[in-house]
Amino acid sequence: MTEHRYTLTLSCPDRVGIVAAVSGFVAQHGGWIVEASYHTDQETQLFFMRQEIRADSLPFDAAELRARFSKLANEFQMNWQVSDTKVKKRVVLLVSQQDHCLNDLLHRWRNGELQVDIPCVISNHEDLRGFVEWHGIPFHYVEMPNKNEQDKTPAFAEIARLFDTVRGDVMVLARFMQIVPPDLCTRYAGRIINIHHSFLPSFAGAKPYHQAYHRGVKLIGATCHYVSDELDAGPIIEQDTMRIDHGDTVEDMVRYGKDIEKAVLARGLRYHVEDRVLVCGNKTIVFR
Amino acid sequence: MTEHRYTLTLSCPDRVGIVAAVSGFVAQHGGWIVEASYHTDQETQLFFMRQEIRADSLPFDAAELRARFSKLANEFQMNWQVSDTKVKKRVVLLVSQQDHCLNDLLHRWRNGELQVDIPCVISNHEDLRGFVEWHGIPFHYVEMPNKNEQDKTPAFAEIARLFDTVRGDVMVLARFMQIVPPDLCTRYAGRIINIHHSFLPSFAGAKPYHQAYHRGVKLIGATCHYVSDELDAGPIIEQDTMRIDHGDTVEDMVRYGKDIEKAVLARGLRYHVEDRVLVCGNKTIVFR
Amino acid sequence: MTEHRYTLTLSCPDRVGIVAAVSGFVAQHGGWIVEASYHTDQETQLFFMRQEIRADSLPFDAAELRARFSKLANEFQMNWQVSDTKVKKRVVLLVSQQDHCLNDLLHRWRNGELQVDIPCVISNHEDLRGFVEWHGIPFHYVEMPNKNEQDKTPAFAEIARLFDTVRGDVMVLARFMQIVPPDLCTRYAGRIINIHHSFLPSFAGAKPYHQAYHRGVKLIGATCHYVSDELDAGPIIEQDTMRIDHGDTVEDMVRYGKDIEKAVLARGLRYHVEDRVLVCGNKTIVFR
Amino acid sequence: MTEHRYTLTLSCPDRVGIVAAVSGFVAQHGGWIVEASYHTDQETQLFFMRQEIRADSLPFDAAELRARFSKLANEFQMNWQVSDTKVKKRVVLLVSQQDHCLNDLLHRWRNGELQVDIPCVISNHEDLRGFVEWHGIPFHYVEMPNKNEQDKTPAFAEIARLFDTVRGDVMVLARFMQIVPPDLCTRYAGRIINIHHSFLPSFAGAKPYHQAYHRGVKLIGATCHYVSDELDAGPIIEQDTMRIDHGDTVEDMVRYGKDIEKAVLARGLRYHVEDRVLVCGNKTIVFR
Repeated sequence: MTEHRYTLTLSCPDRVGIVAAVSGFVAQHGGWIVEASYHTDQETQLFFMRQEIRADSLPFDAAELRARFSKLANEFQMNWQVSDTKVKKRVVLLVSQQDHCLNDLLHRWRNGELQVDIPCVISNHEDLRGFVEWHGIPFHYVEMPNKNEQDKTPAFAEIARLFDTVRGDVMVLARFMQIVPPDLCTRYAGRIINIHHSFLPSFAGAKPYHQAYHRGVKLIGATCHYVSDELDAGPIIEQDTMRIDHGDTVEDMVRYGKDIEKAVLARGLRYHVEDRVLVCGNKTIVFR
Repeated sequence: MTEHRYTLTLSCPDRVGIVAAVSGFVAQHGGWIVEASYHTDQETQLFFMRQEIRADSLPFDAAELRARFSKLANEFQMNWQVSDTKVKKRVVLLVSQQDHCLNDLLHRWRNGELQVDIPCVISNHEDLRGFVEWHGIPFHYVEMPNKNEQDKTPAFAEIARLFDTVRGDVMVLARFMQIVPPDLCTRYAGRIINIHHSFLPSFAGAKPYHQAYHRGVKLIGATCHYVSDELDAGPIIEQDTMRIDHGDTVEDMVRYGKDIEKAVLARGLRYHVEDRVLVCGNKTIVFR
Repeated sequence: MTEHRYTLTLSCPDRVGIVAAVSGFVAQHGGWIVEASYHTDQETQLFFMRQEIRADSLPFDAAELRARFSKLANEFQMNWQVSDTKVKKRVVLLVSQQDHCLNDLLHRWRNGELQVDIPCVISNHEDLRGFVEWHGIPFHYVEMPNKNEQDKTPAFAEIARLFDTVRGDVMVLARFMQIVPPDLCTRYAGRIINIHHSFLPSFAGAKPYHQAYHRGVKLIGATCHYVSDELDAGPIIEQDTMRIDHGDTVEDMVRYGKDIEKAVLARGLRYHVEDRVLVCGNKTIVFR
Repeated sequence: MTEHRYTLTLSCPDRVGIVAAVSGFVAQHGGWIVEASYHTDQETQLFFMRQEIRADSLPFDAAELRARFSKLANEFQMNWQVSDTKVKKRVVLLVSQQDHCLNDLLHRWRNGELQVDIPCVISNHEDLRGFVEWHGIPFHYVEMPNKNEQDKTPAFAEIARLFDTVRGDVMVLARFMQIVPPDLCTRYAGRIINIHHSFLPSFAGAKPYHQAYHRGVKLIGATCHYVSDELDAGPIIEQDTMRIDHGDTVEDMVRYGKDIEKAVLARGLRYHVEDRVLVCGNKTIVFR
């Protein structure tokens, strides 16, 4: 994964010849395609595509690749981008007190499995400062008033300011137990990733394991999704479930659930930073 | 499983000494316990128990076992029953046109894996008559008017009559695409098993795969549950999920889903006929 | 899946421009690519490709497609074929006495989920004649002497004769409890599919569930693979596992295992008949 | 799980009346059984049992419980023990350079999910000293010569000395890439837990992911087992698998595999420290 590559992702109205045009363009410059994926959405008749190209196979850099590709892109009315694996995504983590997702993501980061920069961690509690700072990552405490939503406006403004200051690419709510206000959801659409501790759309909102316990389900789950202005209703990136039984208490579910939550979030975030997730309405295409 | 056994299931208010009393009672008559399971529900503080006893280890038959046990049962205010593996449960299957669950259950039955009697199959279509009758099982067609619920009263009365006539123990809605009216749900509470083609409580009601497709979930599922007067809201017996991705159409989901549906129904029905399912409010205890 | 399509599969030495050349060829004739998958094997540096093209988007038929494509194919030294979804694969099923795979495959066939022709079923037992013939499929009994391998030569010659007579494309050992002799394995390489009741390479050979029980594994599995002259060692197409525990006897494993076996075989066979499986040495590429 | 409990585990020749005798003994002293599990091994006809009793329901302490129970235990020829949840197991972790299991276990420990003492971590590399010491846990470096097995005798003697000095209950090889010599395996039988990065018995020994890649399996796995003097052949405690496909390289398998390895080891260790694992020959009974 440390090979230098360019990742081209695009969507456009479907028609004959898109793949031929794009792969012809790449081949004409000697480009070596390492991975290629396509999808046509049946409802919108939009075509989606992702290609990874070996950087050293092209006679020019990413800027030139973009410049040359834009002509073709216009012709097909493409929505597109080229990213460069040498330019790491900047991921800002938000946490509260539960640290299983944080612990998991920081481990993947320090071992080189998750190839991103983590410019800072933001929290509404001080508990995890020591662990974060041990990694050499700045930790910002933002006080979050417990009263009502309006009171939280300055706190979220501060979060947005911190995120912008470090030029964050994506905000990860790694068990951040606060509801992001609609204006931020809109402003950072497709750039805020949340992990919800249920198999959505079941058990949206508060205390999903309690809801699951009372409904008597036989599996619990977790969902990684983009945050939208409707609570727990944004485009789903990844989900998983695990079996429980009647003997499991809510506390057991909470404990087991942590293992799915961290796994699902880690996969979802990985897909995102590798430009594998393309949003189509309220759904996602995930080119694994 | 062909060993002759008695299965004792019970529930009662939890207190010290229940297991000692019951296992003492069994041991005192030389009873050999082959399987034993317990559970205490935290909300109701009810204790649940299931024991399988080798019939040949006891010096008396099931009737005498019941007679002798009733004294102990009264003392502990037990809700209890003793069933005999030699007395097979009588399972009436209801189907419409889709036959994947029917095909699966009849196969398990004719191979001896599902040790039940199937006195008849009831359907609102004629399509599956040939396949059912090939098995030597009577097939009853009951016409179901397509208009409104009231019109269906005579049809459901006929279904109830057929079920009672063959002394059915349990009615299995093996993809029977009709809503059972509330009075039948009440009359046969805990005796009607349905397979719903979603991971409940998500996507209750009609066309769950279409609902799943539009929500963009990454797993689909199926749920086997007892039918109650609230649609798709009765006690859940068994569930499972499987992974799909953005490339799967509604038709693909329908096709994949059949495999989960039949597996989940087969397991749920097996648990039921082996007296492994005890209902506690709107939840089930399943002693696997 | 009932849309008329041509499926192009190919492999050739990897180099720049293959995708561009192939998709350019298709686009030039107005061909509409519905599905496309690629893979480069790292060890052999062979490139593998599969494309589904809508038949009605091309101005000619499959024969003409083949004729025109062959020039390009030669240029790239391709190993290739074009199949036509209107020409169904001819699948001959071989069974012994266990019928769970047979029951499952025949159900998928009669419901149209498995779009193949089944010209006959061959068995070394008479048990399943009635069930097969109910489907209107000819059933051939071939006596299999119980003594040694040499004695079985005429029986396998008869099986090969029957297979050739019906112009079979693929032979499916749907729990056929006989070892196919090496000469047939070679003669029909890549055309005989077996389901083995273990997670290979663990527990090859006889009585895998007994082997699994004695080793004390916590999961059991099944493997669908092409038959080669080394027993249970051919290229693996599909596998799956399921959880068991210490309470499960060998008989329980046999019973549970049937459900994995039939699911794994059904998936593997489906991949094969849809030309999704490309063999690379002793491994398979499965373009799902 | 913080409720104070005594855990009674036992095995003895199977006969009528064991459960009655044990539960009668507990009830007679007012003991409240919170969890109870039984199993009879069919091959050895040995009976296995585990009970969790609320400590505050008994009028005496663990020592007195042991004293009183021993009479009954002798009568039934039991192999038994009573452990006390207030007395935490002492777990010594051994690691090399890969830290995914260490990171996972230390997280579960510092969050109170894994209720054990970790008196020290031992490693044949210095890499993980900083991370371990941040937790306030002593880190011991033991040099391991790279040449042959005999040279390693003093290193393993030092490991044993460290383990004994801290009165370790169980040694966990959390991706410790050294083969424990037979004399230590014997000396600490049932007290050394290893995580092997394959679904045993497939791919025992070195480089299991390479072996898996070359065999072309469609699932990879991990196995948590007690170490015995035969390499990777001891009693299996827990296993799991996950799906891969032809596109996954050995490096991908290594990366994905870490997630199964840490999950399987965490579950296996948890079962062990909660006295849920009883060894029966080369198999385990795991009372989950």
